[in-house]
Amino acid sequence: MPPVPELPEAPYPLEQDTSMLSRKFGREIINYFSSSPLNRVSFLRTDHAFLSAALRHPTSSFLLFNNLAPLAKDPAQLAYASYTDVRPLIGEDPYSKPEAELIKEFNSTVTIPQLIFLGIDEKQSEKGLQWNDYRGAPFFALDVTPKGTIEKACTALIEDMKSNGLTFIEGRMHTSLSAGEAAIYAQARSLLDWNARNPFCAQCGHPTLSINAGTKRTCPPTDLASVATPLAASSAPAAAAADPVPSQQRPPCATRKGVSNISFPRTDPTIIVAVLSADGSRVLLGRARRYPPYWYSTLAGFVEPAESIEDATRREVWEEAGVRVGRVVIHSTQPWPYPANLMIGALAQALPGGEEISLQHDPELEDAKWVGVDEISHALEFGTSGLGEEPSKEYKPGSLRLPPPTAIANQLLRAALDGYMLKAGTGEHKI
Amino acid sequence: MPPVPELPEAPYPLEQDTSMLSRKFGREIINYFSSSPLNRVSFLRTDHAFLSAALRHPTSSFLLFNNLAPLAKDPAQLAYASYTDVRPLIGEDPYSKPEAELIKEFNSTVTIPQLIFLGIDEKQSEKGLQWNDYRGAPFFALDVTPKGTIEKACTALIEDMKSNGLTFIEGRMHTSLSAGEAAIYAQARSLLDWNARNPFCAQCGHPTLSINAGTKRTCPPTDLASVATPLAASSAPAAAAADPVPSQQRPPCATRKGVSNISFPRTDPTIIVAVLSADGSRVLLGRARRYPPYWYSTLAGFVEPAESIEDATRREVWEEAGVRVGRVVIHSTQPWPYPANLMIGALAQALPGGEEISLQHDPELEDAKWVGVDEISHALEFGTSGLGEEPSKEYKPGSLRLPPPTAIANQLLRAALDGYMLKAGTGEHKI
Repeated sequence: MPPVPELPEAPYPLEQDTSMLSRKFGREIINYFSSSPLNRVSFLRTDHAFLSAALRHPTSSFLLFNNLAPLAKDPAQLAYASYTDVRPLIGEDPYSKPEAELIKEFNSTVTIPQLIFLGIDEKQSEKGLQWNDYRGAPFFALDVTPKGTIEKACTALIEDMKSNGLTFIEGRMHTSLSAGEAAIYAQARSLLDWNARNPFCAQCGHPTLSINAGTKRTCPPTDLASVATPLAASSAPAAAAADPVPSQQRPPCATRKGVSNISFPRTDPTIIVAVLSADGSRVLLGRARRYPPYWYSTLAGFVEPAESIEDATRREVWEEAGVRVGRVVIHSTQPWPYPANLMIGALAQALPGGEEISLQHDPELEDAKWVGVDEISHALEFGTSGLGEEPSKEYKPGSLRLPPPTAIANQLLRAALDGYMLKAGTGEHKI
Repeated sequence: MPPVPELPEAPYPLEQDTSMLSRKFGREIINYFSSSPLNRVSFLRTDHAFLSAALRHPTSSFLLFNNLAPLAKDPAQLAYASYTDVRPLIGEDPYSKPEAELIKEFNSTVTIPQLIFLGIDEKQSEKGLQWNDYRGAPFFALDVTPKGTIEKACTALIEDMKSNGLTFIEGRMHTSLSAGEAAIYAQARSLLDWNARNPFCAQCGHPTLSINAGTKRTCPPTDLASVATPLAASSAPAAAAADPVPSQQRPPCATRKGVSNISFPRTDPTIIVAVLSADGSRVLLGRARRYPPYWYSTLAGFVEPAESIEDATRREVWEEAGVRVGRVVIHSTQPWPYPANLMIGALAQALPGGEEISLQHDPELEDAKWVGVDEISHALEFGTSGLGEEPSKEYKPGSLRLPPPTAIANQLLRAALDGYMLKAGTGEHKI
C-alpha cells in the first residue's frame, strides 16, 4: 500500500460548522496543497521594518530551494534553515532600506538572492514575533540555486546543509508531505518559480527587480549597470546592455503607470471535471499516453481568456472527448504548484443524446470511456496511487487504476458517487 | 431606469435540463461576458490552411480595436469589418505559410498586425465555411492601433471605418452590449490586451512573435533584425539590439524547451463573495473610495499563488473586513476583460463570533457593514446601476445602491437572498 498522507482538515472548527451552507452543501473538501497553517499577512509585505524584524527573529524559518528542489529531512518532512545559516548569503538585513531606495539603487549586474516572505505561523504565537496585532513565527523561502554573483555563497550554503544530513528532494512532492507542509511548499515553490521565469519585463524587455517580499516584480526606471558596465552585462542579462546611451535612465515602460497585472505572480486556472452520464450511472474518464496501463483520471484543461469555468468545462469536454455537457457545478479547488496551476474541480452532467465519445476534435487523449459507478467505487478503494507509484497489494492486475486522495480528481470521483451529488434534494450528506 | 441588457441564456436547451445536478443545485447562472456564441475550435489554431480559408471566407468578420476601443455602431452594437476592408493592412493572406517558416523569418523591426482567430459561429452554418466536420462563419479580432511600420495602413483603415459612420467606443462596455456580443468583445479584448502587454520574453528579454492565431507568443531562436539593423532597433524594441554579435542567433531561452506557461495568455483568478452572517439574516458589503455615495458591493480580491479559492476567500474577507469565514461554496464565475480577470463568485458564511468588522488589517475599503436581507432585497429592485450610471427613478436618495445584473456581485446577492442558499435541504429552487 502506498503511503497515504494525512489529509488536510478544514481550517475552521468543524464542531462549529453547523452553518446553513454546510447543511445544504455538506462539509467543505479541503484539498491537498491548500489550507496553509501560515497567515500571509499580505498587507505587511511592503513594510520593510516588519520584514526586517521577522527575518531576524529567533523563531524565523527558511525553506531553501536548489533548482526548485526543496531542502528536506526525507520525502515526508521538509527541513528549515535558520537566520544564522542564511546570513552569509543574504547579508545582515536585506530589508534595512525602504523599497523606494532599493529601486533607485537597482543594478542589473548584481544578483540579489531571491527571498520570499511566506507568512507567520500563529500557532507559534507565544515565542513568535509580535508586530502590532499579529503574532507568530515568520516563514521565508530562499532560492539557493548557484548563479551570477552569488554562486559561491549559494554553493557554500548547500554544502553546509548537506553536511547536516539534509538533502534537496528532486521531482514532484504531491503525495508525501503532511497537509501543512505541502501547503507551505506549494506557496514557496510557486513564487520562486514565478520569479525565476520573469527576470525581464514582458512589456519593455529590461531586467526587473523583486519587491514586496518576493510577490511583485517592478521595472525600475534606472539601472546603474547601464553606466558602469554597458558591455559586461551582455552575456547574461541581455537587455541590460540594450540602452546604448551613457545614462542610468531606461526607456519609459507602461508597467510603471498605475497597476499592471504582469507585475504580479500569475496563476493559471484549470478546470478538472467528473462528468456524469445523463442518467447518473456512469462517469467519463480519460487517459493520456504517459499514464501507466489501466490508469485513468477525470478530464482537465486550461481556462482560456474570457471564459467562465462553466464554459471552459463544456469546451474542454467536447474538444477532448466529444461529449456535450449541460449543468456544471463547481465542487472545490486545489492549488497545483507545477508550476502555478489552480485546479477548479467541477461535477457536470452530459446532455441526453450528447454522450457519444469522439477523440477526433483535439487528439490530446489516448482514450476516453464511460465507467460505471460500481467499477469506480471499487477502484477508489483498491486501485489508487500517485502516477509514479505502485498500486496497493489488494489491487487486481488489469482493473481500473485512479489518482490518489491527494489529487482533486479522486475527491471529485468520490463526490460524484456520493449522495452529495446524486441524491437530489434529500438534505442529507455523507461528506 | 438605466438600460438593462438582455441577460445570457444557458447555452444548452433548458427544457432538456432536468439533470440531477439542476434538481439539486438549481439552474446554472450564466453571467455577462460568458457563454459566447462562438465555438473556439481551439485545436484548429495551428492549422494554417484552415486559418487561411477562414480569413478569406465570404462570411468572415473582423472586430477592430483602436487602443482597445472596439468598433461599434453605437454603445449597444458592435460593428465588423470585412476581409476586403482589412486586406490593405493585413495583406492577402498572413496565414499562407506554416508557423515554423514564420518563426524562421522573424524580424523584430517589422510590425505585424495583431490578428486573432476567435472562433466560428455555428448558427451561421448554412453559408459558413465548412472544414472537416466544422461549419460556421469565422470571427477574427484585429488591432488597428497606429504604430511601427503599419502606422499609415492602420490610420487609413480607421478613417475608412469612421467615414461609414462607425466609431471606436472608449471605456468599459460592461452593461450595454447584448449577451452574445459582450462575450465576443470580452474574448477579443482580453487577447489583444495580453499580446500588447507581452511584446518581450519575460524569461530572456528578447522580442516575441505572436503565433497560434494570436493565442501564444513564442521566443524565436533567431532575429533577422540583429543582422540587418542592430542599431536602428534600439529606439523601440529595446532588446533587439542587445545581442552585439553579428549573427541572427539569439541566446538560449528556457521557453523554447517543453511548455512554459509564460508563452500563453494569462488569466487572473479573483474571488468575489457574498458573506452571510452566522444566522443568515445579513450580508457583508463593502465600498471603495471611488464608488459613488451609498454604493456598496460584495468583497473581492485576487487569488494568490498556491491558494485555493476557498482559502483566498477566507483570507480576503479577513484582511479587508476582519470577518472570520467558515464554509465557502462556489456559485458561478464571470470573465471580466479589464484586463484579464476571472471572477469566481462564492457564497460564504461567517463563523459564530467572527462577525466583528475591522478595517485595520488591509486598509483597502473605505467602509464595510452588515446589511439586512430586506434592505438588500429592496436595493436589488430599485437601487442597481453600473458604476458610472444613474440609478432608476424609483431609487430613493440616501438608500443603498448596488451593482447591476450584468455584474456577478448582483447575482451573488440574489442567490444569497434566495431559497437556493438559505432554505437548506428543501429541494426547491427559485432560480
